[in-house]
Amino acid sequence: MSFIHENFLLTTKTAQRLYHEHAVEPPILDYHCHLPPKDVAENRRFANLFEIWLEGDHYKWRAMRANGIEERYCTGDAAPYEKFLAWARTVPATLRNPLYHWTHLELKRYFGIDHLLDEASAPAVWDRANAVLSDHELTAHGILGKFRVKAVCTTDDPTDDLRYHKAIAASGLATKVFPTFRPDKALNVHAPEIFNPWVDALAAASNTHIATLNDCVGALRKRHDYFHEMGGRLSDHGLCHAYGDFPSDREAGAIFGRARSGHAATPEEHRRFASYMMLVFGRLDAEKGWTKQLHLGARRNNNTRRFRQMGPDTGWDSIGDWPQADALGNYLDALDQENALPKIVVYNLNPADNYVLATMIGNFQDGVTAGKIQFGSGWWFLDQKEAMQWQMNALSNCGLFSRFLGMLTDSRSFMSYPRHEYFRRVLCDLIGRDVEHGELPDRDDLLGPLIHGICYGNAKNFLGLNLE
Amino acid sequence: MSFIHENFLLTTKTAQRLYHEHAVEPPILDYHCHLPPKDVAENRRFANLFEIWLEGDHYKWRAMRANGIEERYCTGDAAPYEKFLAWARTVPATLRNPLYHWTHLELKRYFGIDHLLDEASAPAVWDRANAVLSDHELTAHGILGKFRVKAVCTTDDPTDDLRYHKAIAASGLATKVFPTFRPDKALNVHAPEIFNPWVDALAAASNTHIATLNDCVGALRKRHDYFHEMGGRLSDHGLCHAYGDFPSDREAGAIFGRARSGHAATPEEHRRFASYMMLVFGRLDAEKGWTKQLHLGARRNNNTRRFRQMGPDTGWDSIGDWPQADALGNYLDALDQENALPKIVVYNLNPADNYVLATMIGNFQDGVTAGKIQFGSGWWFLDQKEAMQWQMNALSNCGLFSRFLGMLTDSRSFMSYPRHEYFRRVLCDLIGRDVEHGELPDRDDLLGPLIHGICYGNAKNFLGLNLE
Amino acid sequence: MSFIHENFLLTTKTAQRLYHEHAVEPPILDYHCHLPPKDVAENRRFANLFEIWLEGDHYKWRAMRANGIEERYCTGDAAPYEKFLAWARTVPATLRNPLYHWTHLELKRYFGIDHLLDEASAPAVWDRANAVLSDHELTAHGILGKFRVKAVCTTDDPTDDLRYHKAIAASGLATKVFPTFRPDKALNVHAPEIFNPWVDALAAASNTHIATLNDCVGALRKRHDYFHEMGGRLSDHGLCHAYGDFPSDREAGAIFGRARSGHAATPEEHRRFASYMMLVFGRLDAEKGWTKQLHLGARRNNNTRRFRQMGPDTGWDSIGDWPQADALGNYLDALDQENALPKIVVYNLNPADNYVLATMIGNFQDGVTAGKIQFGSGWWFLDQKEAMQWQMNALSNCGLFSRFLGMLTDSRSFMSYPRHEYFRRVLCDLIGRDVEHGELPDRDDLLGPLIHGICYGNAKNFLGLNLE
Repeated sequence: MSFIHENFLLTTKTAQRLYHEHAVEPPILDYHCHLPPKDVAENRRFANLFEIWLEGDHYKWRAMRANGIEERYCTGDAAPYEKFLAWARTVPATLRNPLYHWTHLELKRYFGIDHLLDEASAPAVWDRANAVLSDHELTAHGILGKFRVKAVCTTDDPTDDLRYHKAIAASGLATKVFPTFRPDKALNVHAPEIFNPWVDALAAASNTHIATLNDCVGALRKRHDYFHEMGGRLSDHGLCHAYGDFPSDREAGAIFGRARSGHAATPEEHRRFASYMMLVFGRLDAEKGWTKQLHLGARRNNNTRRFRQMGPDTGWDSIGDWPQADALGNYLDALDQENALPKIVVYNLNPADNYVLATMIGNFQDGVTAGKIQFGSGWWFLDQKEAMQWQMNALSNCGLFSRFLGMLTDSRSFMSYPRHEYFRRVLCDLIGRDVEHGELPDRDDLLGPLIHGICYGNAKNFLGLNLE
Repeated sequence: MSFIHENFLLTTKTAQRLYHEHAVEPPILDYHCHLPPKDVAENRRFANLFEIWLEGDHYKWRAMRANGIEERYCTGDAAPYEKFLAWARTVPATLRNPLYHWTHLELKRYFGIDHLLDEASAPAVWDRANAVLSDHELTAHGILGKFRVKAVCTTDDPTDDLRYHKAIAASGLATKVFPTFRPDKALNVHAPEIFNPWVDALAAASNTHIATLNDCVGALRKRHDYFHEMGGRLSDHGLCHAYGDFPSDREAGAIFGRARSGHAATPEEHRRFASYMMLVFGRLDAEKGWTKQLHLGARRNNNTRRFRQMGPDTGWDSIGDWPQADALGNYLDALDQENALPKIVVYNLNPADNYVLATMIGNFQDGVTAGKIQFGSGWWFLDQKEAMQWQMNALSNCGLFSRFLGMLTDSRSFMSYPRHEYFRRVLCDLIGRDVEHGELPDRDDLLGPLIHGICYGNAKNFLGLNLE
Repeated sequence: MSFIHENFLLTTKTAQRLYHEHAVEPPILDYHCHLPPKDVAENRRFANLFEIWLEGDHYKWRAMRANGIEERYCTGDAAPYEKFLAWARTVPATLRNPLYHWTHLELKRYFGIDHLLDEASAPAVWDRANAVLSDHELTAHGILGKFRVKAVCTTDDPTDDLRYHKAIAASGLATKVFPTFRPDKALNVHAPEIFNPWVDALAAASNTHIATLNDCVGALRKRHDYFHEMGGRLSDHGLCHAYGDFPSDREAGAIFGRARSGHAATPEEHRRFASYMMLVFGRLDAEKGWTKQLHLGARRNNNTRRFRQMGPDTGWDSIGDWPQADALGNYLDALDQENALPKIVVYNLNPADNYVLATMIGNFQDGVTAGKIQFGSGWWFLDQKEAMQWQMNALSNCGLFSRFLGMLTDSRSFMSYPRHEYFRRVLCDLIGRDVEHGELPDRDDLLGPLIHGICYGNAKNFLGLNLE
């Protein structure tokens, strides 16, 4: 039997039945990812397995570095096949890491490969995968079709002109591709050298003269409007922790003014300015019925030397341990008090905080929108079986699992769609085990809709994306 | 087979045997709850299923709000049957939440109902339950008898005259009902508008003139004496975190004086005053051999708008993430140093803190009173299978499980006694699995007393309540 | 069947096969412990079971105190047999605590005893164990041979003359005994009454005049050189949390000078001085290719009264809940930036921090030394099945389990070698379950080396100790 077989991760008969009957059919709604819209618009073709699989994957780089593989085989200038070989050598060292599962699931689903990847099998895997790629069925569009991806929400700066989204919409591609409004740079008053060029770009993109913070907020609103026109219904924020320490308009304006004239905000000023802007962004989303995503808890760019060499998102990030409850509670409360609390998804990176967040969401459910405040799926380092189970158990025990929006890839790669399969297997295994332990009724009329909702239906109904 | 069957939650043969042989027989000692003594004294009768089951249950309200059910069906003015129907509609959405288990366990044990509750079964459930209630066997007294409740400890303000406790004691009811001394309001120097009327009430209740903090402490001692006369042997405190930053008598007196003249204490003054008072309360308990309960970790009243509409305890509370070790360690240490450390039960609300607390208790075991410092049973959001297992595992791994006081309902409802059954099933399942994995000896002479102790015997021996 | 049988803790067929085929044969490399080198050098003989088993075991004392056993039977003046009997009485109260497993594993492996220990079996156990001890096969040397201990790394102050290590090296004992450089006292500028005698001892040991901080660092370097000559390749630090707040040379020197003249450093000065010294120690280890161990998270000496009576390490310590990520990240980053980051093992005491630490190590893997930054095995309160599984799962999910250095005893006792067996059983049970759930390939050519590496091979290859 091959490692990836039809009942992979499904350890009970009930899990197997539930998965095959209820979890295979629903299409994919990948409502948060980092796919390059350019690649979709241009229907990118991949010259070889390196391009489609290894090019920008910092999960793999971290594993390779920990395995003593030199940087030239990760982000460096080694040849594609050399890099692939270095990865293949590392794969057996990843036993018990999710990479071991993902690797073989991906090789199987994209290329029909059943070999366990290692140095010995590497040449055959390389040849086989490249042969499949040369057929040009696994182009960007081919992949979206093959995995029945109903829609994809990319992650975009407010200054982005969304030209590729336009082109995709015009192309008639069956998969919808929507932008997501991610204004992280709007908080950078502590780093004027980053902040000011960005404000200038925002001014240009919005055709606005930005002299004051009010002007800046106006320009952001214009871009938010534009994202809405382009079908966007989600915003996203990458934050160490929420911000809940609110300044007056005047104070926020003054911090903005100082940053614009080149004076970096202090940490406290930054925190207060960020609190201010997050209220602004909350109001924008609430007005238009959008869903705001908060990605909390990453400690980024821990390795200064490497950050200077390679920049962000190259594998030097990890999990922070800041307190989360007070600032998040204050933020949600402040929006709620002015009746401007949008739908929210809170993603958590520190598993120690799961119960804090799974209970926090319950404080702001409004009795109107079912599941209005969501505890999002396991994120980044938590996007694997153990931590997915923790997230699902925390949500189940403290809230309504049945309203859960389910899986998203959060990925930069076209090779990540099997993560949805992986999630659905973990989901059905959890439910199947509960049934066999007598903790859930063995009734498909209850469990079928539960599974379908979490796989697809809940996100479809909740997010308000135009899927037709 | 009905969902609630004889081996519900008992997943091994050994668990089944242990439960039925050792965990069914012991009576219930519900040593911490929020039952209204008035209802017991007056032997309340319940007109319908709404009154006995939904009237004040903020667990259910949170689930309903998260399911998009309007507030009028929760705390609002909808008719009882409408509210019940709204709850019935939500029940299938609670799959994997403990409410799903509790709901069906309660319907079964009180009314013999085996239906899974949903919109379709709601009318029959309503009729059946109301028919049973109309027999008047399930009055307050009837319920206490039916579930073999040996004793109940309610939760009472020091200013309470305990008239209902007196009436119950005089009535000859087989179930003992004792008061618990809960002086949370004595810490409220940051809120003179709450604090001062309470101090006035304390003065009246104790027939004392309160001019100084010393007077206040004297009045509290009188009330503590009175609670003792009434059979009380426990105190209780609801705290974000312990207080361990101790002021002088003079400083504490000054903060008290300012609050009495209407000046709210600063957060730091509040913390120091609370530290002072908690020492006072520790000494009172130590002198009389009482057990002090510390409920740590709730972040209450997160939703300001709703708090203003509804007040506290209406479902807007969640789990905080404050550091706990330093203040708790300092508090226990300060009492220990003056030889005034009473028996303590620490209840935890943030599962991330389980091991911190399970090891902290070991620092103050005195080699005289077995299990003197207790890590209490899973509380509130942690009062379900997953989190009960965590608490029991943490205690087992870091301390003596065999000395554990076991379950309490912490409930406002007469419908909560099956929580003891639920706990005992989880307990026996855990032990049964250990036995079948070879981690515990398969010897009933060891396991029987272990189970009996945790179900009833330990609390009976430890707390010193007069159960005869 | 006896409680400790051949498949103890091995709950699947695969686990049993893997354990017996791959985990029994590798010898023990106990790379961190607190064994007294004097006892090894003098080939200590143990007069009775008390001496070898209970003499200094604060795990057992904590359990006994929690069981209501008076201090005279723990650290006090009761007779050895009385103390043993008090422990025997407590053993049945430790069900589900790891002590219950360790107790019976130790009695079985050292003395062939299969009885469950309790008051009734105590006399026979005492007699049998003492009879075995009187044969003088279970001397210090005999034990090291019996358990095939390849090498032991003790824990030593820089001022130690290592005379016993010299004597052992000269004796031709098959087990290598290396010193570990543990300069905790070098941070004590907040306690001049401890710090200054220690600096004086350092001056004497290094034959250096210490007037300035530079002199002190020079003296430490001499001692580090000496430990290196004696075969030491590891350092160790016991810290609440890492230190990452770096002062200038001048500022550090000034704090040193004030402490030397009797003025205690403030907490902030202490933190900054400790940050400075930890950089110094990092550089020393990096220069010589050593491995630095960081033991993070203990809250020590919680009970002031008992600390005054008994001193440290007598069972009054527990788990702290300080934030760990920022200071540790800053510390590793600072060393990395000056290309002076040694191999590191981070040991964690608070399970809530497992994922934080398991991801932090990935930020500093250098692509040269495989597994350069390690997340160490479950420590102290976490040195039991549940927490070992957590540590292994966190490392597996966030890093490379295959590079894990595995188990160490961290023990003061010659009776602790079965902890390696216990760990290997837990390890194989975890892997066996994964295989039977289809999460790992059922291939011994992959799993055998994985297990062997974690049991012995990784530590052997990584640490660079001279084992020949």
